[in-house]
Amino acid sequence: MTTKVIAFDADDTLWVNEPYFQETEKIFCKLMDNYLPPAETSRELLKTELKNISLYGFGVKSFVLSMIETAARVSDGQANMELAGKIIEMGQVLLRKPVELLDGVKEVLQELNGTYYLVLATKGDLLDQERKLQKSGLDKYFHHIEIMSDKKEEDYRKLFKRLNCRPEHFMMVGNSYKSDILPVLELGGYAIYIPYHTTWAHEQADEEIESPNCYKINCFSELITLLKK
Amino acid sequence: MTTKVIAFDADDTLWVNEPYFQETEKIFCKLMDNYLPPAETSRELLKTELKNISLYGFGVKSFVLSMIETAARVSDGQANMELAGKIIEMGQVLLRKPVELLDGVKEVLQELNGTYYLVLATKGDLLDQERKLQKSGLDKYFHHIEIMSDKKEEDYRKLFKRLNCRPEHFMMVGNSYKSDILPVLELGGYAIYIPYHTTWAHEQADEEIESPNCYKINCFSELITLLKK
Repeated sequence: MTTKVIAFDADDTLWVNEPYFQETEKIFCKLMDNYLPPAETSRELLKTELKNISLYGFGVKSFVLSMIETAARVSDGQANMELAGKIIEMGQVLLRKPVELLDGVKEVLQELNGTYYLVLATKGDLLDQERKLQKSGLDKYFHHIEIMSDKKEEDYRKLFKRLNCRPEHFMMVGNSYKSDILPVLELGGYAIYIPYHTTWAHEQADEEIESPNCYKINCFSELITLLKK
Repeated sequence: MTTKVIAFDADDTLWVNEPYFQETEKIFCKLMDNYLPPAETSRELLKTELKNISLYGFGVKSFVLSMIETAARVSDGQANMELAGKIIEMGQVLLRKPVELLDGVKEVLQELNGTYYLVLATKGDLLDQERKLQKSGLDKYFHHIEIMSDKKEEDYRKLFKRLNCRPEHFMMVGNSYKSDILPVLELGGYAIYIPYHTTWAHEQADEEIESPNCYKINCFSELITLLKK
């Protein structure tokens, strides 16, 4: 393993994200209680999100638009616009959340910063991810920031080209097996999988594969030990 | 003038954009006719958009969210959610619009492609701009794509760094005096201003400045003549 570039996913790898979305979804389902039980609203929302993902992409704004679309459909257009106003506000609260770093993140980045070329490789909304990075105070550790519209093989291929980096010198660290691990392994890179306690349904991979290029660790600080091996 | 890098704005410089937004806004104002006269709804919408711009950034999703927020406020929450559903749909129509190139664009890019390092430098929604570029068939002419969350001096400074390009070797071509021209001139670069017949209120500059580094042309194909001088 001759890693030169280490790329990090951001949401739920460096900082808390999915729990905030789930919290918001819970409030949304409660608001729709007059029309459908929460579990069914939740299923309807996921259906809307999956339908819209190729059109909207990832991130808070897409999530808010899908909640409003779901609310209009589930209430058969009969709820009043106060509901839409409340959902808009929930989205703005989500966009203004402080950034809560996960354990060990700052220390590990600080330590790796001299030895490796560090990249932030995250998908989602451009402005929102830039803002979170700035709020996090982690921007000074990264040599390159890549905000991607998706994280499929093709997207990583473009990233390698942009970084002028061969896959065997590239290591991706992330919590989404589907977006951070599988495509990188397929291209011949290395991947460190740090599962987070909760994952959005769309990010769940069908199964984990066996690969000598993949390591699974339980917390961020294990990364240092692993890289020293 | 020893230009090495030419960067192009996209919306209303390479392809039609603002007229589609205005068309959508017109339909929106008509939908709100029961509550407010169209001209006032239009003013309310702009107010909402300006309030939200630092939180949402640019692009269709931000526009749709601001229309829904305006509709909720203007109707005092009393319109029904069918209206929100309609606005969502208008946004999806906007995202699916075909890309309509402006006159001469393809030919000029083709001609400049061998001589200069060509960059697409556009702001807006990441996925939407990537999709428009792909639909446009122009991606093959660009050596570098930069989708920016904003186009202020600071953002151009980062772009110069990323391109490893000195301002005096950089030329920006665009239709927004405020976003494409002024910040580049301030930094010592060159700028070609191609006014479009219509501009979003937020993009209107207070005044044009006199600068030997700035050229104003009427159509895209004049660029070739200008660069040959």
